Amino acid sequence: MKIRVGIVGYGNIGRGVEKAVLAAPDMELCAVFTRRDPGEIKSAVPALPIDAAAKMTDEIDVMILCGGSATDLKEQGPYFAQMFNIVDSFDTHAKIPEYLTAVDAAAKSTTAVISTGWDPGLFSIMRALFGAALPDGVSYSFWGPGVSQGHSDAVRSVACVKNAVQYTVPIDDAVEAARGGGRPELTARQKHLRRCFVVAEPRADKAVIELEIKTMPNYFADYDTTVDFIEEDEFTQKHASKMPHGGTVLHSGRTGAHEHVMEFSLKLESNPEFTGSVMVAYARAAARMSSEGIHGAKTVFDVPLVYLAGKDRAELIKELL
Amino acid sequence: MKIRVGIVGYGNIGRGVEKAVLAAPDMELCAVFTRRDPGEIKSAVPALPIDAAAKMTDEIDVMILCGGSATDLKEQGPYFAQMFNIVDSFDTHAKIPEYLTAVDAAAKSTTAVISTGWDPGLFSIMRALFGAALPDGVSYSFWGPGVSQGHSDAVRSVACVKNAVQYTVPIDDAVEAARGGGRPELTARQKHLRRCFVVAEPRADKAVIELEIKTMPNYFADYDTTVDFIEEDEFTQKHASKMPHGGTVLHSGRTGAHEHVMEFSLKLESNPEFTGSVMVAYARAAARMSSEGIHGAKTVFDVPLVYLAGKDRAELIKELL
Repeated sequence: MKIRVGIVGYGNIGRGVEKAVLAAPDMELCAVFTRRDPGEIKSAVPALPIDAAAKMTDEIDVMILCGGSATDLKEQGPYFAQMFNIVDSFDTHAKIPEYLTAVDAAAKSTTAVISTGWDPGLFSIMRALFGAALPDGVSYSFWGPGVSQGHSDAVRSVACVKNAVQYTVPIDDAVEAARGGGRPELTARQKHLRRCFVVAEPRADKAVIELEIKTMPNYFADYDTTVDFIEEDEFTQKHASKMPHGGTVLHSGRTGAHEHVMEFSLKLESNPEFTGSVMVAYARAAARMSSEGIHGAKTVFDVPLVYLAGKDRAELIKELL
Repeated sequence: MKIRVGIVGYGNIGRGVEKAVLAAPDMELCAVFTRRDPGEIKSAVPALPIDAAAKMTDEIDVMILCGGSATDLKEQGPYFAQMFNIVDSFDTHAKIPEYLTAVDAAAKSTTAVISTGWDPGLFSIMRALFGAALPDGVSYSFWGPGVSQGHSDAVRSVACVKNAVQYTVPIDDAVEAARGGGRPELTARQKHLRRCFVVAEPRADKAVIELEIKTMPNYFADYDTTVDFIEEDEFTQKHASKMPHGGTVLHSGRTGAHEHVMEFSLKLESNPEFTGSVMVAYARAAARMSSEGIHGAKTVFDVPLVYLAGKDRAELIKELL
C-alpha cells in the first residue's frame, strides 16, 4: 500500500514537496489544497480548495503543510492535525515549544512531525547529536549565503510590502573562528548579516517598512540587517528564480586533553526543493509511526532514522550501518 | 538516580569510556571488568575479574563492552546482554546482521545498543539520513588518516603478531571526485590505502603474517594494503601514543534539475576517547529505553536522539531545535 499524500499550500516549498512525492516509489500524491483559486494552480494532481480537505480523511494518509510559520502554520497545524497525520517546517525557533503544545493537543489520534526541513530539522539533529557526543563543547550554526524562506515570508508579512526576499550571509571571520577551535563566543550579530530586497506597494512609506523589518523580534532585531527597495522588474530578474542555500553546523569539543571538531554542511542549489525532499522523508515517518499507534506531536529528536528511509530496517542495517 | 555503569575491557576504548563516564553528571562508574589480572589495572574504580559481573546485576544499569569485534564481542555481546543493558562498538560491518540477531536473542529483558561509536555509529546515521533526505543520490564514506581500532585488532589477532597498528588513509583524488559531484563510481581500493606497522614475535615467518593480513576478508582483502615490520622500540616511539583520526561522509544527490551536496566530517585528536564519548551517550539511551520497557538489540537507526542527550526533551526542543 502506497502512502497517500496531500499538500497544503502550493508555493515554493509546496512545489518542492510535489517533486519529491512524485519521485518516491512508495508514495502517491492525491491532491494539492490551496486558499487561492484552484483553477490557477498548475499542479500535477487536482488542486482543491483548502476546505475540501476535511471530507477526505479516508483518502489521505499524510498532509504536508507547506505554508509559512509567520501566519499560515499557527492555524493550519492544529487544524489539520485533528484530522490527518501532518508534517510541517515551522521555523520560528523561539515559538516552537508553544506550537508543539498546540499541535500535540490536536493530534490525539494522529502523528504530527513538526519543524522538519533543514533548520529546524537536519541542523537540529546535528546540534543535538554533536552535543550528546561531546558534551564538553560548543555548537555553532551558520546559514547561507542564501535565501531564507522563513525570513522572506516574515518580510512579506509586513504591511505595504509587495514582494521581498531575504538573504542570510555568514560572516567569514566567524566561521573560521569557530572552525579553528578555542570556542570563541559569537553573537548572532557577529555570525550573520541579513540582506533584504523589498518591492514596496506604490506610495508606501519606505521608512516605516524598513523600521518594521529591522525591529521584528526573532527574525531581524538581533542582526545587522540591510533593506534595499527595488522595482518589480529588478526583483523578478535577479531575485525570484534561483534559490541556492546552504550552511554549516560546527561543534568544537574536548575529551580529557584532546580536542575534536565535528562539522556538517549543506550546499543546496534549491532550498525549497531540498526542504521539500526532507519533509517527504518525515511524511513517510509520520505515516509509519501513526500506523504503529505512536501519536501526538513529534520533533526530529523523537523520530528514529529507521522510519525515514524508503528501505526497511534489515536493508538499512545490512547496507548502511 | 544516576545511571550506574560498568566497563568490560580496559584497553584504549575502555579508558576513553572511563573518562566520558566520569565527566557525565548523570552517571556513576561502578567497576571495570577485565580478563587480565585486576591488580594490573590502573582504573579510577575497582577492577574485577570478568566473571564477577554475573553477580552484580542489581548494581549496574549498563555495561559498556570495550573489547574488539574480531574476537571479544562475538561472545561477550550475547553473554552480557542476557544480564545487563549493554552498549558496544561492534565494527565488522559485514557481520553486523548476524551479531545483531545473536544479541537480540539474548536481550529478552534488556536493551542492547550495538555498533555505536563513529563508524559504525555516527557515520551510519549520516549515510541513512542523507539517503532519506536525497534518495536520488550516492553516499561516500572516507576514513582517516588515522588508526582504525577495529583493523588494528584484526592485525593483532593474526598468529605471531606481537603488536600492530593500522592506518587508514583516504586517497585525495577520490575525495575530490566525490565532493565535485557527478557521482563517480569509486571502489574500496580507489578510496583508501591501508598501512600496517607490525611487531612480529621472534622467529615468526613474516611472509606468512603478511599474507594472512593482506588476504583477510572484510578487513584487508579489498584494499591496497602495506605491511611494514618494525621493532618494538620504534613501535612504542612512533605508533603507540597518539591516536588522531577522522573522516568524511559525502552525499551527492539531486531533486529535479538541482544538485545538492551533504557532508559530515570529524577531526579527532583521540579516536578511542571520541569513540568512548559516543558510546557513553548510547549507554544513556540504553538505560532510558530499558526503563521504558523497550528491550532487544537496537542500532543507531532505532534510537531517537531524545534518549542520547543529558538534557531532557523540553530543553532539547527549546534550545536546539
